[in-house]
Amino acid sequence: MTKPFQTILITGAAGRLGTELRHGLAPLAERLRLSDINPIADLRPNEESVICDLADEAAILRLCEGVDAIVHFGGAPLERPWDEVLNANIRGSYHIYEAARKHGIRRVVYASSVHAIGYHALEDRIDAHAPHRPDSLYGLSKCFVEDLGRLYWDKFGIETAALRIFSSFPEPADRRMLWSWLSFADCVRLVTAALTAPRVGFTVAFGMSDNAVKPVDNRLAGHLGFHPQDNTEPFRAGVEARTPTPDPKAPAVQCLGGWFVDLGHPDDEPAR
Amino acid sequence: MTKPFQTILITGAAGRLGTELRHGLAPLAERLRLSDINPIADLRPNEESVICDLADEAAILRLCEGVDAIVHFGGAPLERPWDEVLNANIRGSYHIYEAARKHGIRRVVYASSVHAIGYHALEDRIDAHAPHRPDSLYGLSKCFVEDLGRLYWDKFGIETAALRIFSSFPEPADRRMLWSWLSFADCVRLVTAALTAPRVGFTVAFGMSDNAVKPVDNRLAGHLGFHPQDNTEPFRAGVEARTPTPDPKAPAVQCLGGWFVDLGHPDDEPAR
Amino acid sequence: MTKPFQTILITGAAGRLGTELRHGLAPLAERLRLSDINPIADLRPNEESVICDLADEAAILRLCEGVDAIVHFGGAPLERPWDEVLNANIRGSYHIYEAARKHGIRRVVYASSVHAIGYHALEDRIDAHAPHRPDSLYGLSKCFVEDLGRLYWDKFGIETAALRIFSSFPEPADRRMLWSWLSFADCVRLVTAALTAPRVGFTVAFGMSDNAVKPVDNRLAGHLGFHPQDNTEPFRAGVEARTPTPDPKAPAVQCLGGWFVDLGHPDDEPAR
Amino acid sequence: MTKPFQTILITGAAGRLGTELRHGLAPLAERLRLSDINPIADLRPNEESVICDLADEAAILRLCEGVDAIVHFGGAPLERPWDEVLNANIRGSYHIYEAARKHGIRRVVYASSVHAIGYHALEDRIDAHAPHRPDSLYGLSKCFVEDLGRLYWDKFGIETAALRIFSSFPEPADRRMLWSWLSFADCVRLVTAALTAPRVGFTVAFGMSDNAVKPVDNRLAGHLGFHPQDNTEPFRAGVEARTPTPDPKAPAVQCLGGWFVDLGHPDDEPAR
Amino acid sequence: MTKPFQTILITGAAGRLGTELRHGLAPLAERLRLSDINPIADLRPNEESVICDLADEAAILRLCEGVDAIVHFGGAPLERPWDEVLNANIRGSYHIYEAARKHGIRRVVYASSVHAIGYHALEDRIDAHAPHRPDSLYGLSKCFVEDLGRLYWDKFGIETAALRIFSSFPEPADRRMLWSWLSFADCVRLVTAALTAPRVGFTVAFGMSDNAVKPVDNRLAGHLGFHPQDNTEPFRAGVEARTPTPDPKAPAVQCLGGWFVDLGHPDDEPAR
Amino acid sequence: MTKPFQTILITGAAGRLGTELRHGLAPLAERLRLSDINPIADLRPNEESVICDLADEAAILRLCEGVDAIVHFGGAPLERPWDEVLNANIRGSYHIYEAARKHGIRRVVYASSVHAIGYHALEDRIDAHAPHRPDSLYGLSKCFVEDLGRLYWDKFGIETAALRIFSSFPEPADRRMLWSWLSFADCVRLVTAALTAPRVGFTVAFGMSDNAVKPVDNRLAGHLGFHPQDNTEPFRAGVEARTPTPDPKAPAVQCLGGWFVDLGHPDDEPAR
Repeated sequence: MTKPFQTILITGAAGRLGTELRHGLAPLAERLRLSDINPIADLRPNEESVICDLADEAAILRLCEGVDAIVHFGGAPLERPWDEVLNANIRGSYHIYEAARKHGIRRVVYASSVHAIGYHALEDRIDAHAPHRPDSLYGLSKCFVEDLGRLYWDKFGIETAALRIFSSFPEPADRRMLWSWLSFADCVRLVTAALTAPRVGFTVAFGMSDNAVKPVDNRLAGHLGFHPQDNTEPFRAGVEARTPTPDPKAPAVQCLGGWFVDLGHPDDEPAR
Repeated sequence: MTKPFQTILITGAAGRLGTELRHGLAPLAERLRLSDINPIADLRPNEESVICDLADEAAILRLCEGVDAIVHFGGAPLERPWDEVLNANIRGSYHIYEAARKHGIRRVVYASSVHAIGYHALEDRIDAHAPHRPDSLYGLSKCFVEDLGRLYWDKFGIETAALRIFSSFPEPADRRMLWSWLSFADCVRLVTAALTAPRVGFTVAFGMSDNAVKPVDNRLAGHLGFHPQDNTEPFRAGVEARTPTPDPKAPAVQCLGGWFVDLGHPDDEPAR
Repeated sequence: MTKPFQTILITGAAGRLGTELRHGLAPLAERLRLSDINPIADLRPNEESVICDLADEAAILRLCEGVDAIVHFGGAPLERPWDEVLNANIRGSYHIYEAARKHGIRRVVYASSVHAIGYHALEDRIDAHAPHRPDSLYGLSKCFVEDLGRLYWDKFGIETAALRIFSSFPEPADRRMLWSWLSFADCVRLVTAALTAPRVGFTVAFGMSDNAVKPVDNRLAGHLGFHPQDNTEPFRAGVEARTPTPDPKAPAVQCLGGWFVDLGHPDDEPAR
Repeated sequence: MTKPFQTILITGAAGRLGTELRHGLAPLAERLRLSDINPIADLRPNEESVICDLADEAAILRLCEGVDAIVHFGGAPLERPWDEVLNANIRGSYHIYEAARKHGIRRVVYASSVHAIGYHALEDRIDAHAPHRPDSLYGLSKCFVEDLGRLYWDKFGIETAALRIFSSFPEPADRRMLWSWLSFADCVRLVTAALTAPRVGFTVAFGMSDNAVKPVDNRLAGHLGFHPQDNTEPFRAGVEARTPTPDPKAPAVQCLGGWFVDLGHPDDEPAR
Repeated sequence: MTKPFQTILITGAAGRLGTELRHGLAPLAERLRLSDINPIADLRPNEESVICDLADEAAILRLCEGVDAIVHFGGAPLERPWDEVLNANIRGSYHIYEAARKHGIRRVVYASSVHAIGYHALEDRIDAHAPHRPDSLYGLSKCFVEDLGRLYWDKFGIETAALRIFSSFPEPADRRMLWSWLSFADCVRLVTAALTAPRVGFTVAFGMSDNAVKPVDNRLAGHLGFHPQDNTEPFRAGVEARTPTPDPKAPAVQCLGGWFVDLGHPDDEPAR
Repeated sequence: MTKPFQTILITGAAGRLGTELRHGLAPLAERLRLSDINPIADLRPNEESVICDLADEAAILRLCEGVDAIVHFGGAPLERPWDEVLNANIRGSYHIYEAARKHGIRRVVYASSVHAIGYHALEDRIDAHAPHRPDSLYGLSKCFVEDLGRLYWDKFGIETAALRIFSSFPEPADRRMLWSWLSFADCVRLVTAALTAPRVGFTVAFGMSDNAVKPVDNRLAGHLGFHPQDNTEPFRAGVEARTPTPDPKAPAVQCLGGWFVDLGHPDDEPAR
């Protein structure tokens, strides 16, 4: 049986999630093109690799040639100084969408982030219609790329699934991750759903596993067909044993963005 | 133990779904009265059959005598010329509600359709409060009967559960049915819930199985107690192997109504 | 300066509102074609008249030839037996839209009615997104034509402004009309706005004057540009002097539809 | 491993639900302080007991000393004469919150009730944003305490989870409880979730088991992490066999509050 | 011409607003019964006066005998110790509603307050569906009486218009009143509208003049027919000259309740 | 009487609107600091001028020293190539907000644009909660700055009023401007309201005059106190005489953004 895609490009493929996606998306495409600013050593037969800076418009245009779909997970993965956010995330993503437009690529799956909406409170139980409330320059760049995807859908017909990933790590590392965790397997499920859904248009989805505490409402992405199958209960006792009870009134507990809301400006303090 | 109903009338009982309902509703009533414009050959002991044209007001009045509840699945089941839609669906359903009123029948379960809302997009994730957007004369007649049910509830106290059935076939036949399919067993579950719910008033529910992709939101019908138990995953590989990948920008992929939105006027082209 | 339209068709032109529209719409079109089942005696130079039964499909097709826009105010103007509602309002309006489709007419302004939503309560303060709740067969036919207009916009690109006229009479005749009244001048303003708005698509608007008590919210029709300039305050003292204080708990006071909600089925009692 | 709380106070600890909570909450605290107007005989080693009238402000202040969290289930548990509701529920709960404020207690879990919203209809499918519609003086007092909790959160930073318990009994006793039942085990799960959720602020949650018919929407409490695991299906056949089919138009069937909506004023009739 | 009411009772008639209402409501009733805990000296021929404590249930029952409508403006008008709020506002209002029930009085117009929703922010632009967020014990008592009105409407058919009065003083005294001011004349207009609207059911309305800054949305009370005619522009220059520019981030500027949100508990500090 | 501000900075002060604001804002501040990339010749005594490129971070930091409030109208005023949008609008606005943060400036009034939401349809009647739908790179940069303002409010307490200006020209120049026009006087009123409102937080407002056709709903900005006093009726006859009737189905008529939705990518075609 033929695979749904000939070639999928994964940006940020050397990163934590990019590495997981190499495994996870293999069944979907004859070929995975892997891009990162860092080299990737252990290429498999179905993979090809390009070292590439997102800020380099011409390189990105070449990178996207012959691609059917883009899984755009590249860029700065957390709060960074403005220039870095500007170049890697804002300019870099613009280059990706321009390349998609010029090469006629039909769908982009973008790693947006909880930090695009980090200042909403847990008890607000927002859904995907809630306005942007970025909690950092990083989050601001995620908002920008969501709007960029919206524009390229409305004007150029390129579909975007913007996946607001919460906390995707090997396992939940703190109390907040007991609700915010997205297992690697669920992350792969989410990207797979976004790539194969019959109709995406411009869709925003929240990326969390099926954890007990659910402070956001994902029903508006029901047409993607994402159904997480993991949850944090197996890790709860361990996490609770080694971390103190949080103060419910602390901004980092109140807000979806967690400790990002406590960050000052990256010019003033080193990013964590 | 006594059954909840003495006599349930099923209209359209010789049709695809009517045949399923004969089996499925047997536990609910001492007697099933089966009505269709076509004869029904294989009557069981708990069944009685009436050949009857919905357009014949007097015949419908007689048909409904002694009935406790009506499962109204009769009428033209897809796009047809105006006169046929008018007579079978609009006038026919009016006759059914008039008979219910005159005989004091308390609840009608009506086979409405996705085609009453066919022009809404998948990513709109509508719920039952979304306005009508029929995609055909057929869909328009479904809107009419929903409003008729609303009137007969508000004015005459006859309850209606309007079930917007998506695609109820033996198995999913195309890519769209991978999300729109309602298994026969789930169809029976849905009608059973609508017949036995403690309070219906006027309720609209969507009729889909528990498929992965969910482009509508059924939460407003939670008081019916419908919980589908089937889904299309077992059929996915087969369907995808024998059908091409759809174009997400095609109206028939974008819209809930599927290929009905591509239909012209039935006067201008033969109905499919 | 040229007028915006060559020929506007007014159906129901011999009726109460039709007569007002002949005067009011004259500035908008070189020619008014007047249609009614009754003859119109006093034709002016800019007018032409056709005696025509809405139930006669072929006659309606001829009637609409050469028309730029249709102001569809014909049909039964209040509760009538089913056959009359069916023929004049349901079938008749279908004939109008079919003629619009076949002749390529771009916009229909339809006299819908408060009775399409008559069972909503005043204190619900509904807007145009509220679901249909017809209070009569008459109101049910108005719902049908609204859905018909929705279909012909979505499928055939014919715009409809559905104007839910409340109580358009020479002056307010009872306590309810102190809030529901639409002066003839405001009625003309509303139809004019609906004909000349830059974009209508499918729009529902409420037709009331600028009365003190406003039990519905017209903001969703802001793009029509309707601004009523009359109100019932000059009539208040007179009406209150000659009518008793209503019982706030009476259904006819609670519901937008007024005494229509008290009507039984027209088969059972003579329509008022 | 240490327990999350040193001392939890349970008011109404001699009551039906209080008794269940003694078992259920034991794992959460080193010590349970049990308060009731009636004595509690069978104290376990982890328990201490105080006989106490909620209407006695000074006694309540003493009762709450040294407490980490309050599970406030005390007060009149159903419709009672005004003076009793006033003293036990309104004044009593004020005393609890004042004690919480004076002792710096951070979180209150309150047994609110379906009767705070008893006049909403099943088919309205309300969520926690729906306005109060109490069905009794009892329900009115529940509304009061919810607002009290809101005030003490906004002004004094004391969190409240207001749990609107539907019908928590050993098993469903009538047709309504087939949808309204909250099993004792699910009640314990709900209180546990409310005590341990990372952030509560002021949150309202509905307390029902995972029954088939769901006439309210609990999504706004998703951040509590409550997942009921029981349902009424095992009891359905029995209940239906021994109780008549309800009339869907009866107010007690239409409304969430059930037979409470049929109650007159407690001055006029004995409370059931 | 006869007046709409025989006898209207005004509670709190010796207070600031009560005094205004004596003038303003005179045209509506043959007779005004004035009640207050303080004596009223200057009775006019159409007035009768009763000295009466709201906490005295029997006295209130007598007070309401023979009354057609109650304008309930009595009780503590600002933050007070709990016992005073309890007796004057909570118990007192209960006595009023009980008297209305026992005497069959049909409509109550209640002076609720902005302080029932004082913790909402100006930029939230709430409407009457927003949940209660009292900012004081005083505001909490206003919430209670709103819910009491809701109960007595749903259960006993007594209508209530709950008027959330913002700041009704001779003229705006500070910067906040530039938006929150309700002129005495507009206050009379509001009460008049609430008394004479054809249908009130249970309605919440905001009481503000037509000031430039409008931080709440009154559209849900459109059926009352209240149209303020005053505004604060004539006072702006004066107020701004003698008061400092407020800090937009101060809670008392952010929140509808103004300086009430800065109040501690009345036990801890003297009420202002 | 003292003016509310010492020094207001106007960026883009040499532009069409900047020039109007020099006149209009003079009453609000002792001193206006005017910034533009082009020189300003006719300085008045209350004005000082700085030639300054928004892309120059250090220059912008100096520019904002000693400023009380920023009226940020600078940047590319319509669709431009990416580099120009990036430098003037995205980077430039970031520099403005950074300067506000570093100098402790409390409020920014930003000239956002209808083109941030240009793909919404007129009949959608959106309000300020609707999601971004930019229609151009220009509009995308407006979305970015709105989100930047949101971040700087949530994290750094700098207020922003984002004014989505529709069409602010000397007079309406085409059919679309009959609804989208913002007179210069109303533009000054809007900026004045945004500068002087007691509380802004982060607020989005639509900038249109009081034109007859209102395709957006400005109620969520009611707390700004903006009340336009001009409208396009005096210009209607002239505009309609010299421009053809638009096609309601053309995207540029359907969408708020007008002809911007017809623009391709600025790389592919010269901006109009």
